[in-house]
Amino acid sequence: MKVDGKQMRPIWLDETSQTVKVIDQRQLPHKLVIAELTTVDKVITAIQAMFVRGAPLIGATGAYGVYVAALNTLGDTGDEALFLTECYRIKSARPTAVNLAWAIDKVLADVSTKEGATEKTAVAKTAAANITEQEARNCRQIGEAGLELVKTISEAKKGNTVHILTHCNAGWLACVEYGTATAPIYAAFDKGIDVHVWVDETRPLNQGARLTAWELGKHGIKHTIVTDNAGGHLMQHGMVDMVIVGTDRTTRTGDVANKIGTYLKALAARDNDIPFYVALPSSTFDWQAVDGLKDIPIEERDPNEVRYVQGDDAGSLRKVLISPPDSSAANPAFDVTPAKLVTGLITERGVCRADEKDILRLFPEHQNKMV
Amino acid sequence: MKVDGKQMRPIWLDETSQTVKVIDQRQLPHKLVIAELTTVDKVITAIQAMFVRGAPLIGATGAYGVYVAALNTLGDTGDEALFLTECYRIKSARPTAVNLAWAIDKVLADVSTKEGATEKTAVAKTAAANITEQEARNCRQIGEAGLELVKTISEAKKGNTVHILTHCNAGWLACVEYGTATAPIYAAFDKGIDVHVWVDETRPLNQGARLTAWELGKHGIKHTIVTDNAGGHLMQHGMVDMVIVGTDRTTRTGDVANKIGTYLKALAARDNDIPFYVALPSSTFDWQAVDGLKDIPIEERDPNEVRYVQGDDAGSLRKVLISPPDSSAANPAFDVTPAKLVTGLITERGVCRADEKDILRLFPEHQNKMV
Repeated sequence: MKVDGKQMRPIWLDETSQTVKVIDQRQLPHKLVIAELTTVDKVITAIQAMFVRGAPLIGATGAYGVYVAALNTLGDTGDEALFLTECYRIKSARPTAVNLAWAIDKVLADVSTKEGATEKTAVAKTAAANITEQEARNCRQIGEAGLELVKTISEAKKGNTVHILTHCNAGWLACVEYGTATAPIYAAFDKGIDVHVWVDETRPLNQGARLTAWELGKHGIKHTIVTDNAGGHLMQHGMVDMVIVGTDRTTRTGDVANKIGTYLKALAARDNDIPFYVALPSSTFDWQAVDGLKDIPIEERDPNEVRYVQGDDAGSLRKVLISPPDSSAANPAFDVTPAKLVTGLITERGVCRADEKDILRLFPEHQNKMV
Repeated sequence: MKVDGKQMRPIWLDETSQTVKVIDQRQLPHKLVIAELTTVDKVITAIQAMFVRGAPLIGATGAYGVYVAALNTLGDTGDEALFLTECYRIKSARPTAVNLAWAIDKVLADVSTKEGATEKTAVAKTAAANITEQEARNCRQIGEAGLELVKTISEAKKGNTVHILTHCNAGWLACVEYGTATAPIYAAFDKGIDVHVWVDETRPLNQGARLTAWELGKHGIKHTIVTDNAGGHLMQHGMVDMVIVGTDRTTRTGDVANKIGTYLKALAARDNDIPFYVALPSSTFDWQAVDGLKDIPIEERDPNEVRYVQGDDAGSLRKVLISPPDSSAANPAFDVTPAKLVTGLITERGVCRADEKDILRLFPEHQNKMV
C-alpha cells in the first residue's frame, strides 16, 4: 500500500542483498524503521517482540524465517537436523496465531522434496514468496467479498456515511497488502463509498491508535480513534453500522480468537443488533479446533505491556509508567468470541455464516477433520 | 483512609487557614500533591480538570464550592446576585454527575434561610461539612450492605479467594471515605475474607490503574491491573466471581450511567452468569430520570485525553502521544448500563433490585416523581 506516495509492504526480500526486511511496527506511527532479519534469532525477536504482528504477516515472516534458517544452517554447515531445530524454534515463537505453524509446515514440505543445501534454500525462498503473494491475493479477495456488505449498508443509508468499527490492526501492516478487516474498507473507499472508521485504540499495545489510524490516515480514509471502552456507547447511540475485525485463529465451528477485547465488542453488537463480521484468509482456520474456549491457547504476555505505555514525546519514543510501581498486572493477549455472536466470516472465497456447515460449503476440502 | 500510616481524605477544610484543600488526583499514583481551592475559578478547575472526580466527591467539592463562593462574593462585596451566579457556574462545571447539582442546591437551600454575609457564609461551611460527613457515612453503610454479598460468595467457595472486578475508581478517593464500589471490598478485607480485585485500567484517564490500584495497595489488598479489554476473557474463564462498580447517575428505574466501558463489562457479566452490582449513595439517584439512554447527558471530553497518556518517567510526569499527530479522537466519558443488566444496587439503606419498585421500597420518600 502507499506510504507517502511510495509503495510499501510490511515484509519483503531485498533482491540486491537477498535480505529479509520488515517494518519495525513497534515504532509506528512515530518512526518508520526497517529491520533486517539476517539470523533465526532476529526472526524470533521480530515475531515475539512484535516488530511484526497480525496472523497473516506472522505467517509470512515464519515462512521467510525458514529461508533465513536455511541460509544460516544448510548454507553454512549443511546440518539438516540443526535446520529443522531452528525452524521449530521459530514455529513456537508465538502460540495463538495458527498461521505461523501453518506457513512453516508448508515451506518445510516444499523443502523436503529437494536434495542439497542450495536447492533446499532456493525452494524455501520461493515458497516463502508464494505464501506472501498468496496472502496479498487473499486479502484482495476478502476486500471484494466484504465490499458487497458495505455497499448494501451504504445503499440502505441512501449514500450517507457508513460507520465501521474495528478493533486492533487487521490492516495491511498485519497482512502484506489491503489487510483483512480493513480490506472491505479500502475496497469501499476506492469505489467512492463514504466510509468512516471508529478505531479502537486496542490496549495494551495500542495497535489501533498507532497502526490502524496511521494506515487509514496515509490512505486518506476518515477515522476517529476511541478508547476500547467507547464502542458499546457508540453502538447504543446508532453511531456504528457494522463491526469488522480480524482473527488470529478461527475454529471450524466459527469461534474466533482475536485481540483481547474483541469479545466485548461482539456482545455489544449483538445487544444493539449491529452486524459483526470477522475477515480472514482461510490460513487462519484451525481445522482441528471445534471449541474455541477449550482448544485455542491464549498467550499471556509481559505484564509490563500493561503497566507502561509507549508514545512520542517531542520526537523521542518514551515509555511511561501508568500504575503504582508495586501493583501487579496481567496481560492475556487474545480472547475468544463464540460463533453465536458472529454475523458472518468474510473469506477469500466469499462470505459465510460462522458455523461448520456454511464454512465447509466454502472450504469443502476440509470436510473430513484430520487427526 | 490510611496513606502511609496517616489518615487522609480527598477533600477537607484546613481549620487553621479556613482553606478548602483537595488531593490533586491527576498526579497520583506518582505524586501526592495537595491543591488549595481559594477561588471559584480554582473550584471549577479542580472539578473540570479532574483534580477531584467521582460523583460523591464532586458533590462534596461543589458543596464546599458554595462556601468558597460565599467567602469571595458575600464576604467581599455582599453581592448576592454575583454569589448565585458563581454557584451556578460551579453547578455546570460537569454535566453527568447528578451529585454536583444536588449538593449545591442543598447548600444553597440552607444559605437562603439566613440573612447577612457572615451568617450565610457560616451556614454554607456547615452545610458543606455535613454533606461531606454524610457521604462518608453513606459509604460505610454501603460497605456493610455489600459485605453480606461478598460473604455469601466466600462461603459458597468454602473460603477460597473471592475475585471481584471493578471499573474506574469508585474508591475512597472518589467518595471521602471507603468508596462506593470499594466499600464492600474494604469491609470484607477488614473482616478477614480473602479477596482479590481485578482492576480495569479505565482508559482514557486510567483511574483504575492509577487510583484504584494505589488505594488498594496502600490498604494491603491483593489486586491485579488488567486492560479494559480483558474483563470478558476473565469472566469466560471463571476468574471473576462478581463485578462491583460505582455510578455517576442512576435513574429511578435502575439505569446506570458510569465511566465509559461499564456497559461492556455488564454485557460480559450477563453472558457468563456473573453477578453485576452497582454501589451508590442515594444522592446519585436522579429521581426525575426514567430512561438512562435518553435522560442522562453524556459528557464529551477533550480528545487529547485519548491521544496522550500521562505517566511517570524516572520521577517526572510526562505525557506521550500514542496516535498519529493528525488522527482525530472522540472521548465520551460515560455510558449507560440498562437496568436489565444490573443484578442489584448496593445503597446506604441496603441492597435492592435495579427496578423502580424495589428502589422505591428502600426510598419511599421518592414515590412521587416531582415535576
